[in-house]
Amino acid sequence: MALELTFIPALVVILVTAALGRLLSKGLRQPAIFGELLLGMILGNLIILAGSAQAPIFDIAGIGILLLLFLTGLGLNFEEFKRLEVASSIVAITGVILPLVLGYFVTIYFGFSHIVALFVGVALVATSIGVGASILAEQRMLRTRLGTLIMGAAVIDDVIGVVMMSALMGVVATGAVPLKETFLLVSLAILFFIVSLTVGIRLFKKLSEKLTLGRENLLMLGLIMALVFGLATQGIGLAAIIGAFVAGVILGQSHYARRLREHVSLIGGSFFIPIFFVATGMSFNVGAFASIGLFAVVLVAVAIIGKVVGCGLGAKASKFSGRESFAVGIAMIPRAGVELVLLKLGLDYGIIGADIASAILVMVLVTTLVTPPALWNALKMVKSKKRFNNNAGVLVGGKRHG
Amino acid sequence: MALELTFIPALVVILVTAALGRLLSKGLRQPAIFGELLLGMILGNLIILAGSAQAPIFDIAGIGILLLLFLTGLGLNFEEFKRLEVASSIVAITGVILPLVLGYFVTIYFGFSHIVALFVGVALVATSIGVGASILAEQRMLRTRLGTLIMGAAVIDDVIGVVMMSALMGVVATGAVPLKETFLLVSLAILFFIVSLTVGIRLFKKLSEKLTLGRENLLMLGLIMALVFGLATQGIGLAAIIGAFVAGVILGQSHYARRLREHVSLIGGSFFIPIFFVATGMSFNVGAFASIGLFAVVLVAVAIIGKVVGCGLGAKASKFSGRESFAVGIAMIPRAGVELVLLKLGLDYGIIGADIASAILVMVLVTTLVTPPALWNALKMVKSKKRFNNNAGVLVGGKRHG
Repeated sequence: MALELTFIPALVVILVTAALGRLLSKGLRQPAIFGELLLGMILGNLIILAGSAQAPIFDIAGIGILLLLFLTGLGLNFEEFKRLEVASSIVAITGVILPLVLGYFVTIYFGFSHIVALFVGVALVATSIGVGASILAEQRMLRTRLGTLIMGAAVIDDVIGVVMMSALMGVVATGAVPLKETFLLVSLAILFFIVSLTVGIRLFKKLSEKLTLGRENLLMLGLIMALVFGLATQGIGLAAIIGAFVAGVILGQSHYARRLREHVSLIGGSFFIPIFFVATGMSFNVGAFASIGLFAVVLVAVAIIGKVVGCGLGAKASKFSGRESFAVGIAMIPRAGVELVLLKLGLDYGIIGADIASAILVMVLVTTLVTPPALWNALKMVKSKKRFNNNAGVLVGGKRHG
Repeated sequence: MALELTFIPALVVILVTAALGRLLSKGLRQPAIFGELLLGMILGNLIILAGSAQAPIFDIAGIGILLLLFLTGLGLNFEEFKRLEVASSIVAITGVILPLVLGYFVTIYFGFSHIVALFVGVALVATSIGVGASILAEQRMLRTRLGTLIMGAAVIDDVIGVVMMSALMGVVATGAVPLKETFLLVSLAILFFIVSLTVGIRLFKKLSEKLTLGRENLLMLGLIMALVFGLATQGIGLAAIIGAFVAGVILGQSHYARRLREHVSLIGGSFFIPIFFVATGMSFNVGAFASIGLFAVVLVAVAIIGKVVGCGLGAKASKFSGRESFAVGIAMIPRAGVELVLLKLGLDYGIIGADIASAILVMVLVTTLVTPPALWNALKMVKSKKRFNNNAGVLVGGKRHG
């Protein structure tokens, strides 16, 4: 017996769920989103949103994920980001290749066709950036070298994921890789990043020197920027969250940065972002677990191992410590955004059946739910090692940074 | 040729319109909502919201008006409010009687039936509290004696308007005043106010002494309170905004008040409230002006005179100065909330035809649009008089407050 709710009651229930989720997380010493996701999942099986409430709630949740990425961009350490360009690319690429290859061969091994195997491989590529960003922010590690590496790699791997998805869908539709379209997508994406991160940054830095804005107007400008850039990347064919992230990076280099970060974290953290995580939890179909087969279990394992080992090796090769590399791998585990789009396309085009679809859904579910506590602990390990080293440094007369 | 927009593009266009509206208002030295309403009205004739975008935009606008009233409640000077209880009631009642009587006789004079005349009279009763609140806040006069009087009177007159509307609809449906239902509504309303303003205030004052909340969690609590109280009053049969206002009054007496006011004004003023005003402007059908007849012109005049004279006399009788009484009358001019509900019911039940409906719509439109600049100037006159008196006071050696 599920209770049907209209908009405002649904909103109240979701906000209360988020508040309870935070309390639960605090009690269990887990990151806030763990409780929000978990209670959201339970809530999703207790209530049904009325037709008229569904669209607004998910629209607000959509603004939530845009604001989360905008905030992450605002908080990015851009100088470090540029220094870590190569390392981020290495981590992204190693973290793409391993899951792709593993996913492909596992699916072939289970007796599926070449094209289904390719589909599953691509479905393991793109990291869902929101979970990692949220936990890095909560641990105040967004601006560290490690946090910067993770965010850079996640953005690059999302772009690779979208490009692969487009190419795959072209193959399905025409039987050949759509070279022209793929080339266009990649070119537009590169053009967007270059223009944004050069002209865009300079423009808004100048603007912020000349134009002083009151807090309401400043926040309004920020929100408009996040939405407009989200629309722009969506228009190109990339995810809207990439645009919101870039908008954040641009404004993050202006004189507005500090105040804007404070304001966006308030408006996002108290309303939009918790609604996003609870709504995400609600959209998980627990029924998918019931139909779980051996393939789903193997797929989850491949998804986790692929990123932890793939990205971990990439980070290690870029001279990050063992613990740090492990944390990078963990942070890249969650899949959701690109995968869910791909899932829908796969079903629409008849490439995959309900079996593969529910296995992918379980993979999305498990990777999203296991990451918060795992990353939380991995980051604490990194911190405690640092503190230990620093203390040791003091003992032997070295410099203390801690 | 109207352009059809989906959710995020529509949201961007509305936010940009709000920003331009504020710039326009600043240039014309008008209150912010003047430009927002005006440009919203123009926008409403240029774009059409796609079906999937309409509900979310108006839901967000709905949160906007709740937050505006919540914020007003938070900023209310409660001690002054209690002192002015009698004066507020007098202003509300005189401001109800005159428009009701004038509206009734004017409609009879134009040859309409007794029940239509009663309907038009009731449609002139309830002040739309948002416009006045917004301008009082912008002029920083919400906590003054004058601002407190206006808010108190507007809340009381809204309750009277809803009670009259319910009674009228009962008469239409059954041919007699629904004594039982009316009595129940009035009792529940009084009970709600008493419990909220005694137990509610004490409870949250105690909570705020014991529980320290971070800024995100505090704002989340505030938003939940505003929505829950809105649902509560809506459940009783009153407007949701009354509940949000009372929630604000309750939290306004707690130790959370100062921080919460700051946070709600930021989240409201940069997103939800401007969206409400632009959306309100958009929903005005400029076509209504085309069909304007003599009756509509007279109705607008009656609506304005009824409140300015009615409330003005009430305020004068309560020993406010001439300029202050005039400002009170102006602040009470706008009609929208209860009137639009009544309009819909009237059409649904076949009490009124398109002629009366469009005349009422024009009345809503004109009273909403003329109030911002008029109140703005009336409040400035009050201030300048005060300053003059204070300066004179200095000259003759008196105390200076200014």
